[in-house]
Amino acid sequence: MAGISELIYSLPDDQILFECNIVFFATPHGVAMNSVKSFLEKDIKVIDLGADFRINDSDLWSQWYNMEHSQGALLKEAVYGQPEVRRDEIKDACLIANPGCYPTAVLLALKPLLENHLIDPSNIIADCKSGASGAGRIANQAMLLCEVSESFKAYGVSGHRHFPEIKQELELMAGEPVGLTFVPHLVPMIRGIEATIYVDLLDSSVDVQAYFENAYKNEEFVKILPKGTYPETRSVKSSNYCQIAVQYVEHSNKLVIMSVIDNLVKGAAGQAIQNMNLMFGLKEQEGLSQIGLMP
Amino acid sequence: MAGISELIYSLPDDQILFECNIVFFATPHGVAMNSVKSFLEKDIKVIDLGADFRINDSDLWSQWYNMEHSQGALLKEAVYGQPEVRRDEIKDACLIANPGCYPTAVLLALKPLLENHLIDPSNIIADCKSGASGAGRIANQAMLLCEVSESFKAYGVSGHRHFPEIKQELELMAGEPVGLTFVPHLVPMIRGIEATIYVDLLDSSVDVQAYFENAYKNEEFVKILPKGTYPETRSVKSSNYCQIAVQYVEHSNKLVIMSVIDNLVKGAAGQAIQNMNLMFGLKEQEGLSQIGLMP
Amino acid sequence: MAGISELIYSLPDDQILFECNIVFFATPHGVAMNSVKSFLEKDIKVIDLGADFRINDSDLWSQWYNMEHSQGALLKEAVYGQPEVRRDEIKDACLIANPGCYPTAVLLALKPLLENHLIDPSNIIADCKSGASGAGRIANQAMLLCEVSESFKAYGVSGHRHFPEIKQELELMAGEPVGLTFVPHLVPMIRGIEATIYVDLLDSSVDVQAYFENAYKNEEFVKILPKGTYPETRSVKSSNYCQIAVQYVEHSNKLVIMSVIDNLVKGAAGQAIQNMNLMFGLKEQEGLSQIGLMP
Amino acid sequence: MAGISELIYSLPDDQILFECNIVFFATPHGVAMNSVKSFLEKDIKVIDLGADFRINDSDLWSQWYNMEHSQGALLKEAVYGQPEVRRDEIKDACLIANPGCYPTAVLLALKPLLENHLIDPSNIIADCKSGASGAGRIANQAMLLCEVSESFKAYGVSGHRHFPEIKQELELMAGEPVGLTFVPHLVPMIRGIEATIYVDLLDSSVDVQAYFENAYKNEEFVKILPKGTYPETRSVKSSNYCQIAVQYVEHSNKLVIMSVIDNLVKGAAGQAIQNMNLMFGLKEQEGLSQIGLMP
Repeated sequence: MAGISELIYSLPDDQILFECNIVFFATPHGVAMNSVKSFLEKDIKVIDLGADFRINDSDLWSQWYNMEHSQGALLKEAVYGQPEVRRDEIKDACLIANPGCYPTAVLLALKPLLENHLIDPSNIIADCKSGASGAGRIANQAMLLCEVSESFKAYGVSGHRHFPEIKQELELMAGEPVGLTFVPHLVPMIRGIEATIYVDLLDSSVDVQAYFENAYKNEEFVKILPKGTYPETRSVKSSNYCQIAVQYVEHSNKLVIMSVIDNLVKGAAGQAIQNMNLMFGLKEQEGLSQIGLMP
Repeated sequence: MAGISELIYSLPDDQILFECNIVFFATPHGVAMNSVKSFLEKDIKVIDLGADFRINDSDLWSQWYNMEHSQGALLKEAVYGQPEVRRDEIKDACLIANPGCYPTAVLLALKPLLENHLIDPSNIIADCKSGASGAGRIANQAMLLCEVSESFKAYGVSGHRHFPEIKQELELMAGEPVGLTFVPHLVPMIRGIEATIYVDLLDSSVDVQAYFENAYKNEEFVKILPKGTYPETRSVKSSNYCQIAVQYVEHSNKLVIMSVIDNLVKGAAGQAIQNMNLMFGLKEQEGLSQIGLMP
Repeated sequence: MAGISELIYSLPDDQILFECNIVFFATPHGVAMNSVKSFLEKDIKVIDLGADFRINDSDLWSQWYNMEHSQGALLKEAVYGQPEVRRDEIKDACLIANPGCYPTAVLLALKPLLENHLIDPSNIIADCKSGASGAGRIANQAMLLCEVSESFKAYGVSGHRHFPEIKQELELMAGEPVGLTFVPHLVPMIRGIEATIYVDLLDSSVDVQAYFENAYKNEEFVKILPKGTYPETRSVKSSNYCQIAVQYVEHSNKLVIMSVIDNLVKGAAGQAIQNMNLMFGLKEQEGLSQIGLMP
Repeated sequence: MAGISELIYSLPDDQILFECNIVFFATPHGVAMNSVKSFLEKDIKVIDLGADFRINDSDLWSQWYNMEHSQGALLKEAVYGQPEVRRDEIKDACLIANPGCYPTAVLLALKPLLENHLIDPSNIIADCKSGASGAGRIANQAMLLCEVSESFKAYGVSGHRHFPEIKQELELMAGEPVGLTFVPHLVPMIRGIEATIYVDLLDSSVDVQAYFENAYKNEEFVKILPKGTYPETRSVKSSNYCQIAVQYVEHSNKLVIMSVIDNLVKGAAGQAIQNMNLMFGLKEQEGLSQIGLMP
């Protein structure tokens, strides 16, 4: 971007940061929580793209992230930044916990079903697939092209850190405990998450498609696809859009929901911008008008 | 292979084929069924890599393949060629229906569970992923590199032709009807199938790992991975092996089985050779000793 | 893009097209030449992304494209639309022949050298590599993921249709005949062209880097990289930028120039927009501000 | 390979190694040279897949590898292990310097031309492309899938360690100094090297194709393709074969030679086996009969 973008890159320096209206943390877990308070005290808003404020319960957080949570009190102030779920809270928030990538894809796919009590909450299966950029840019043998390319595998069945975050948010939607099985997989590609979700419909005569279309009819960034079509990750590549399709499988009485996002945009930086726009009263899609890059 | 292999390539010619001991059909569905009889009458064995003889019920076959089955009577003679399931029948067979690629991955993953009645057969979810070679080599816009690469999607939720074949074989294993939800996905890679299967364990105290290890302890081509590991498709690339791992998810009481094969080998040509070896009393692994090609 | 973009898609219809200020042809060769005249007569400007007007000599065109050129007279009016080479002519043009993708990468890499007579024009080697999108979206067995992925090859050594176009434009730059060897290669990726060009420097004491920086110092879309760095196609993915680096190899007295573009943007649609902006007196970078998409 | 292969893996231990007939070093440069002598003294043959013995001149070696060469005297004993170039010497050798991957592809492509003095040795351009496995398996940010995939770039123009090795061997073939420009590129794929080589034919009436066919007519592992065809790396994937095609470009009087190998087989381990077979009087293709894996 040298010579093109006007962005200024500098090392983190509190004196510069204290002049800002908002600070984004894109840091490993455990970093943001130690600095956030000093910004909030100066009325500087904070969006943490890391995991420090995503889980309401500091003990549960410590259990999954293997460290003490130094700012348990701040957890009450933090708002889980999923605009399509809690837009009004975000508008008033000073501290946003930007959702993880897998949670974004799964939560948007289940919101209309759980909020309207259309499914059995005790038997939810989220089979999720992510491109390699989900693992970050650290030198890591397991993420070399020669290890990831031309292969496919599941991982983290015994416990992925996005699990407690998804479960917490699903239970808030449902108003009751949910039984969730979450299995992530690694896809030999750079960007994109696809979630295929299997649930039991309580009443098979319900017009599920209509519930989805209605739930998101005013949403800029969530598009419900026509019946019988399938979302592909490339349709949302480089964009802040989420595409969702639903299909009822009659012979087994299962409802299948498929949801795709770009994990680096709607699943991370794009959603953070969307949250900022809401926090500052800007147009929600400001800076997010890029449509998917195909091919 | 010019100048290296001693194979002779020729156009199909009955006079040449009638000199053979065995004929393999790698033809679109509907082709093999019209010729098979003439070979069987001459005591020439046949292995059909296509779908013509995989489904026992000719009406059901017609429904899924949109054509009449011209040889309903032969369906009784055909043996579904999954060596790890019905080795003895294959040894005596004259006509083998070589299994589809998805079915191979799914059936091997469920056999120990269904035969031992360890799971609820009414709630089986098979979330399957395949490389692009599953679509064959026909010029097809949807399978261009620029369409498939750097993307991931589900397809065929409303009905994939491997569904009836999987269901039929699972029910034979279980001895009762099964409820199956099967969703295939397209992975941006050439070779490989991964199946992640979700089932409800009837008794969570059972040592499932032991059942799997026991079921396949004498099998050359099915390897049960240690607890806590995950099979990757590249481990079996270019080989006839199937790798399986099982993991119990306590909080949701689900058993997750992950199974990988190379769709072009164990899922097609390799399994056909394995069947031939059995039919002719050869060593079962003859010609199949290639181990996975990594990276 | 359904529901997002406001573009209207319609079948080609002269009545609608005659209302336009400009018409873009993105058609197979031989199509545009038959319609262009009717637009020009109505003072409608035309940009042809195809090859119909790229070669000045209609006989040469016919020889490479295996058909008669029906509008030889129009060839004199057409301007080869490489803005960094002939910006002023483009501003006044009514008919633009939008350059091919390979030619764009090669011409920009050689312009400062030929115009300043720094190299031997009789010995130019352009070893070019393109992603698969260069082949278009037609169903074509050779471009299936399973044929292109995980492989690399040269093609078209005996004659690629971009050859005469590159040679013509190089000779206009040099003011004399050039000896060009052009070998394209297919890279297992979607977007991007890299050209590695080998030339003989007439005077090895010349500061080539300075010539390049000077030649493009006012260009928005051509960036000269610092000495010792290498352009990668992903740095310009989805953007209209061209990045160029030059390196002198002392032991063999060769100058190596490396140039990258996105074949679908600077190598096609982006450059067409850039040309339109010039033709209508708009800001040259209007609609082209997207920077490269990484990763 | 657990449970399949009978290979025994153990840490390096001289007591075990001293029982061997042959020891292969697949170690970083600088490791083998310190141990080789102790094996040779016990009449144990050594094949070094690293670079320690590839360059005859220890000063030149030190300059390129940034360390002293501790065993300059052994350099005279070492034989550069390119079987198609010096089969007889290899048969009698105790210490083999196994060639680098790029050198293998380039040397085989130029041997018939230099040995028969058909080209101008002062102007050789080798534009080479390699898959990512050439960089080894070390955790390295630059080789992550997200960095390499969907991109293409040149590197090492100013000096790649395979350059002196290629130059040395070309000069031995030519019997005079050669002028070589060698530019490697990184291809977004796992395995494979393609070299496109540009040379000036001294007499354009010579039947180059015949020279190539004749030079390799008795070689198992070098195949000359028919005129007008192009070698692709996937044709030799996982095999020890090298495929070569030559094409004369009349308008620029250049000869273009294209050569492909699997960098991990003919470019490394396979060639090492081939050398071992020669050293022990085994059939040269023993253990190397695998043909290319397509797709």
